[in-house]
Parts: sequence; structure tokens; C-alpha cells
Amino acid sequence: MNRAMIRNILGSVLEIEAALLFIPVLTAVFYRESVGWYYLGAAALCFLVGFLFKLRKPKDTVFYLKEGCVITGLSWILLSFFGCLPLFASGEIPRFEDALFETVSGFTTTGASIVPAVEELTHTALMWRSLTHWIGGMGVLVFLLAILPSSGSSHMNIMRAESPGPSVGKLVPKVRSTAKILYMIYFGMTILEIVFLLFGGMTFFESVNTSLATAGTGGFGIKNDSLLSYSPYIQWVVAVFMILFGVNFNVYYLLLFGQVRKALKCEEVRYYLLITLGAIGIICANILATVGNLGDALRHSVFTVGSLISSTGFATLDFDKWSATARTVLVTCMFIGACAGSTGGGIKVSRIIIAFKTVLKELNSYIHPKAVKKVQFEGKPVEHEVVRAVNVYLITFMTIFATSIFLVSLEGKDLVTNFTAVIATFNNIGPGLNMVGPTTNYAHFSVLSKIVLMFDMLAGRLELFPMLLLFHPGIIRSFFKKSPVKQ
Amino acid sequence: MNRAMIRNILGSVLEIEAALLFIPVLTAVFYRESVGWYYLGAAALCFLVGFLFKLRKPKDTVFYLKEGCVITGLSWILLSFFGCLPLFASGEIPRFEDALFETVSGFTTTGASIVPAVEELTHTALMWRSLTHWIGGMGVLVFLLAILPSSGSSHMNIMRAESPGPSVGKLVPKVRSTAKILYMIYFGMTILEIVFLLFGGMTFFESVNTSLATAGTGGFGIKNDSLLSYSPYIQWVVAVFMILFGVNFNVYYLLLFGQVRKALKCEEVRYYLLITLGAIGIICANILATVGNLGDALRHSVFTVGSLISSTGFATLDFDKWSATARTVLVTCMFIGACAGSTGGGIKVSRIIIAFKTVLKELNSYIHPKAVKKVQFEGKPVEHEVVRAVNVYLITFMTIFATSIFLVSLEGKDLVTNFTAVIATFNNIGPGLNMVGPTTNYAHFSVLSKIVLMFDMLAGRLELFPMLLLFHPGIIRSFFKKSPVKQ
Repeated sequence: MNRAMIRNILGSVLEIEAALLFIPVLTAVFYRESVGWYYLGAAALCFLVGFLFKLRKPKDTVFYLKEGCVITGLSWILLSFFGCLPLFASGEIPRFEDALFETVSGFTTTGASIVPAVEELTHTALMWRSLTHWIGGMGVLVFLLAILPSSGSSHMNIMRAESPGPSVGKLVPKVRSTAKILYMIYFGMTILEIVFLLFGGMTFFESVNTSLATAGTGGFGIKNDSLLSYSPYIQWVVAVFMILFGVNFNVYYLLLFGQVRKALKCEEVRYYLLITLGAIGIICANILATVGNLGDALRHSVFTVGSLISSTGFATLDFDKWSATARTVLVTCMFIGACAGSTGGGIKVSRIIIAFKTVLKELNSYIHPKAVKKVQFEGKPVEHEVVRAVNVYLITFMTIFATSIFLVSLEGKDLVTNFTAVIATFNNIGPGLNMVGPTTNYAHFSVLSKIVLMFDMLAGRLELFPMLLLFHPGIIRSFFKKSPVKQ
Repeated sequence: MNRAMIRNILGSVLEIEAALLFIPVLTAVFYRESVGWYYLGAAALCFLVGFLFKLRKPKDTVFYLKEGCVITGLSWILLSFFGCLPLFASGEIPRFEDALFETVSGFTTTGASIVPAVEELTHTALMWRSLTHWIGGMGVLVFLLAILPSSGSSHMNIMRAESPGPSVGKLVPKVRSTAKILYMIYFGMTILEIVFLLFGGMTFFESVNTSLATAGTGGFGIKNDSLLSYSPYIQWVVAVFMILFGVNFNVYYLLLFGQVRKALKCEEVRYYLLITLGAIGIICANILATVGNLGDALRHSVFTVGSLISSTGFATLDFDKWSATARTVLVTCMFIGACAGSTGGGIKVSRIIIAFKTVLKELNSYIHPKAVKKVQFEGKPVEHEVVRAVNVYLITFMTIFATSIFLVSLEGKDLVTNFTAVIATFNNIGPGLNMVGPTTNYAHFSVLSKIVLMFDMLAGRLELFPMLLLFHPGIIRSFFKKSPVKQ
């Protein structure tokens, strides 16, 4: 285990967090809010710890997937720990576990809140919450890779651990350039949404916050009723951008470089849009009678389906009150999630497609036992290794899912609450049903349940294995053993 | 597609059903119940149709896995169709879809009933219901294989399609002998339970019915309150036998032939007992306060866990009233199910073990990327093909599961009812929670939901693929095409 390199990268991550904390500090200055001092203090602390971590330069900069996973897992835990300090110290969130929950929920772009009335928070705190979504959406380590000087193939091991999806497509041969392009597209689309929202009459503060939370597919609102009280125009803009941020960013890269035909051929995005449209159709027909007119029903269904399939979690209506059919469709969307290579969570459309095709192939093998045909995806045969990884992912997913539901059930809440609280945090969505529905929050859970849900948020965001590895005896042992470099 | 052979075997299956129908006929004679005529009529009809099916002898007796699956799927549908006729014609179950549901539930050893008060049924109907469990438990085709003259390896394709579990272990090289031994063990254990129950003061009729339903891990009761009103001794006997019938029958074979050490080494059975004990421990601690004393709490937890993990579905207490923790543990047991090679349903312990070990192997591969180690199960490395089959099974399971929940949700019942109705039928258990809890029944579902749940029962019992294949366009096409043999 290359511990020096791990420490070094964690130091850089904390320095980035220190820099990011200046954005809420500036917000505090602008709105003359005294809580800004806590953010400044947290920035100083992050910088100091980061500096100490980086004091001793690593002799060997090469590391492997193992270290990549450990770096990723620990980064996100450290980010959340230091990020929650100003929220807690300022007293805006009085309990430490709640402040940590809120920050984990922010960075993992979950958007599950423990704050009963967000409108009582300061502008500074709101800005910090939205910013955690934006950073978490594309990943702080991907950001780091974009600015670090490239050092061989080692950095790919971080990218593999942090990026959502079954296989990381490097857009261009160099990791650094890939990371840069991703962040440029991300930044551009965020600005675009801000502009669209400003046109709809939102204030600058509101549009920045909403846009940051949409871009990261997070879902922290700045109003108590999420997006209900905004105009239909605003709701349409957010709805469309939520769906857009759930699209594989490779498609935007292709569009950007004029490869329109190749972009339109992307199988995952096609199925993603197909599933989204299907769900919208069912739900629109289902809520039409309740909502009254087709225009409103359409807007609310596009918004809600877009919000849940992209794992954002904004709400315009209390979908917990909808029929069992509509809610079942929504829960299914929650499981499926967005595209790989987007900022969204969930199992990911590509995994669902590969899993489905594997089942079809199995059925065919009963009819033609000797036909050896590989599963096709995106016009290419899927390597056996990818199919295996998808299968293992799904089984691990179900295992963590069932274990979490069991642990959360210990405090005796109803089954739908437990089930949807786990799925909403694990898939980084935010609101679930019943006691975690869109009009409620997560404050009522016990500390144990909050720890379980925090683990789920991190595991869900980091595609399971980096978080699980932190508990692997082999990793823990090698972490406390003297590294072979020094011997 | 060897249609002549398919028709021929289906004919034999119907002839066996005709013979089986004489058991309720005899019951009717003994209790002087006039409904017996309907069973005699059904027997005559079965025999006639079976005779017609077998009129033309197949020229070619060789068939493949494809035909094996089709034979299995169609057999179970035909069995259920003809088996429901006397229940419907006699007016004891007034609606046809209900009679069919009850019979499918019987043959698939689910035990989900649509009868509001079973004590109002005739002895004849009760005996037929219990008998469907017993036949369905080991499988009518396995019975057929035991009596048919062996014809090469073709019959193995039926056995593979009908036997529960990821891989069929032939106990002895010949399919016919394996089938015979299995039925002998099955028969012996059933008799043993009857004797134990008679000692507890049950009438002969009660003990035979209870034992048939336990042996098949079915769960149709003959009292309105299932097994609540029986003595603790009876409840203990049934509890122990439920758990025993969930054990891989290979173990009994080994014990029978003196290979005690090999039997004790069976990894699947060890884990099965470990999971059962763990669940009993959690639930016993959890219900202790409600039940009052340790003895009763222990009995009810052993009974309920044994009943659900073995997928039997008998009840002594209304476990739907237990805490969320206890109910979550029970739902988890429902998913896991019994051992492969037993009469129980569910995902099966062996699949769960292989899936878990695959996940552990994946985690290890992050630490030692170059170590190539196969997953070990039952002391042997698991072939890649088996791991793949387990993965595909689990994904197919989840797909059918989610689709079924969606379809059942269309009628607007609550989510817990929908969820547990599907899991209880799909895993051939019987009772679920809420509106399908142990004190309720399935009569309230719409025809669509009943069709979905019947499909789930059949798909669950036949390990998914034989039922799915019946809907495969390739199979349907080749079924209506002229067979190549005749050309």
C-alpha cells in the first residue's frame, strides 16, 4: 500500500475543499451574514490539515486500483467531515450527526435533508449545500485529476473508482484531458441553466443554487416546498435539465466535436429516454384525473420522473399521495437511475440493459445450446469481464440494500419508509415515500439508521466497492503495516 | 422441436393425475361425500385426454433441454387446469379463476389460498389440496421418470427443468434410479411425520393432510387458523419437519447409505441451518416481550422461521402483527428460501452462498488483481458456468419480481401488500404481510393480478426459465412449425 501517495492526494483534496469554502465565505460577505467566519475557519483548518498531509513528498508516485479505491473512499469521508464543521459550529444544524448527514447527502448528490425548514438557513449555508452537490456530481477527485500534472496510468485508478458507471470511457487518451473536458461540459451546462432560470425571473442567488443542485443531480432545495411555488416555466427548465444531466456525458463530448450521428446512436441514452418517456406516459395518464388538466399533469409527470430517474430529488407535487401504480413506477425509476458517465445515481441504464440482454441470451441458449453469441451493447460485443462486473455489482447492490433495510428496520418504522429511505439514499435520490416522502425529512431517524444511510449514500455514489474495501481486513491490515518502500 | 415426444409425456402426466384423483375419490367414499363424483369425472377426463395424447407413438424418443423445458412448463399448466376442474365443478370454489389459482398454488407448493374458511370445504377437497402439495413438492415429472423405462440422457433434460436448485446432482448415474431414491426418501419422511403427528393426538385425516402439506413445503391448512389451535407438541413436530424438508435431499441419501461424515460436511445445509438459527434468535428476542415466556416465544419463532424459510407457509401466530425488525427478518428468509434439491422454494441457500462468495472474490480482486482463484463451494471449485447461471438467475428473478409488482400495483392496493404478495407467491411460500397476511387470503385480487401471481407461482417453482421459454417467440414458432422428423 503506497500510503505516502494516499496521504499526499488526500492533502490536495482538502486544499481544494479549503478553496471551495471561500465561495460560501464570499456569499456571507455579500449578504453580511456572520456565519461566514465559521466557513473561513473551516477553510483554514482544511488548508492546515492538507498542508500537514502533504509535508512529506512521496518517493514513489505509482499506485494501483487498490490505492485508487482507498483514496476515493477516504477522500469522500474527509470531505464530508470537514465540510460539515461550519454547519455544526455555526449552530445552524445543532447536532453533529445531522450536520454530517446533511454534508454526506450534499457531496453524494443525494439531497436527503434533515433540515425541517430550509428557508430558515442563511444564504451562506444554502450556497455551501448547493456547492457540495456540484462538486460531488462530477467528483472532487476528477477535478483534482484535471489540475494535477499527469503521472502515468496511476491516476486512471482514481478515475475508475470515482466515476459512475460500469466502465469508464476515457474520452481522450490522457486522463487529465478527459477530466478537463468533463468539467468544461459540466460547467458550461450549469451556466446555461442559470441563464435559462434568470430569464424565468429567478433571483441570481436562487438560479445559481438551483442550477448547482440540478447539475449535480442533488436535489437540495432552497424553498421549503422544493420547486412547487415556482412558475411552470421554471419547473419545465429544471425538469429538462435534470433529464439532461442524467445523460452520459460522452454524448455531449461527441456533440461538441461535431460527431452528431455517433452521439445519436448511443444505445444507453436511447433506452434512458425511452424509459423516461414510458414512465412519464404511465404517470401522466395515472394522475390526470387528480391534477385536472393535461398540461399540468404532463409538467408534473415530466418533472417527477426526470427528478427521480436522474436521482435529483426535486419535487413539484407530493408524489407520495399518488396511486400505488404511479408510486411503483417511480420506485422502479429510482432503481434504474441515470446513464453511466452522467452525474446521476442508481443502478444505471447501461447495467440494466446489459443485465436484460444477458437474460435474453440465457433464454436463447435453451433453444440453441451450441450458439455462442456475445451480448451486444453500443454496437460492440460486450466483453465477458464487463458482464461479470455488472452481475457482481447487482448482487452486491442487493446485498447492501437488504442489509441496510434490516438495520434501519431495527427502529420500528413502517416497511415502506425503511425500504424507500434506503433506496433514496443508496441511489442518491433524496426523497422516498411515507415518512421520507417529499414533504418530510430524515431528521427523525436514529443515529444508527443515519450512519447506515450515510454509508449507503457514499457506497451508492462511489459504485459500492471503494466503500466496501475500506472494511476489508486485507486493506485495513496493509494500511497499518509498514509500507515496503521504507524497508 | 420433438412435438410427438412432448405430447407423449404430457399424456403420461395426465394419466398419473387421473390415478392421483382416485385418492380424493376414496376419501369421498370413506366420508360419504357426494363431491367424489366430480373427482371421478375429472379422473376419467384426464385419462381420456392422456390416452388421446399417447395414441400416436413418437418415432424418435430423443429430445433436448428445449423440449425438457417445454414439457415441464406445459405439464404444470395442464396439471393445474385439470386439477382445478372438480373444485370448480362441485361448486366448492365458485369462480373458475379462483379454482385455478388454488390448484396452481397447490401444485407449486405455494399454499396461497383464496378460500376464506377452509373448514367449510369437504374432506375430499381438503385431501386433494394437500395431495397437490405432495405431488408438486418433488415434482410429477420426477415421479414419471421414476416409473418410465430409462431412455438415454434425454430424461435428464426434464429433471434439470423440474428440480429446484442451480445444478441437479444425480445421486446415482441413472436418472430413473435417482428419481426413485428421491421419492422413497420423500415417502419415508412423510410417513414418519404422520406417525409423529398421530402420537400427538391428531386424527388420521388431519395428520395425513398436515404431513402431505409439510412434505411438499406447501402450507394449505385444514383449519381456519392454520396450526394455531393445535398443541405445542404438534407445532414442534411440524416446525422440525418443515425445516427438515427444506434440507437438500442429497444429505438424506448420504445418511441413508452410511456416509454420515460426508453428509455433515454439506456446506449448503450448514449455512441453511445457520441462517435459520440466526433468524430464530433475532425473532425470539424480538417477540419475547409480546409473547410473554421464553418457551412460547421460542416455539413461535422456530415455527415461523421454519415455515417461511422452507417456503411452507403454515402459521401459529399472526406474524404480520410483529415488529418491523421481525417482519424484515421474515421477508429476508422468504427471499433466501430453502436448500437446492429440497422441496422448498425461494432463491435457494446455495445460490445465495455462491453469490456472496462471488462478491468477496470481487473485493479481493481489487487488492490482488492478478490472483486468479475460483469460488469454492462444497469443497470444490465452482465452475465458471455455474457462477454465470446463478448471476443470470438472480437478475431474471429481480426482473420478473419488479414486473409482477408493477402489474399487481395496477389495482391500487398498498405497497407492502403488493410486494409481499409477489414474494410469497413467487417463492412459493403462501402468506405475506398486510392484506395477504397469515389471517387473510388472496380472494380479493383482480383477475389480472391472479394471473400474474399464478405465473409467478409456476415460474418460481420451475426455476424461472421453463415458464419464460413458453413465451419465447422462437419456441412458439417452432411449436407450430412442422417438425423436421416428418419432412
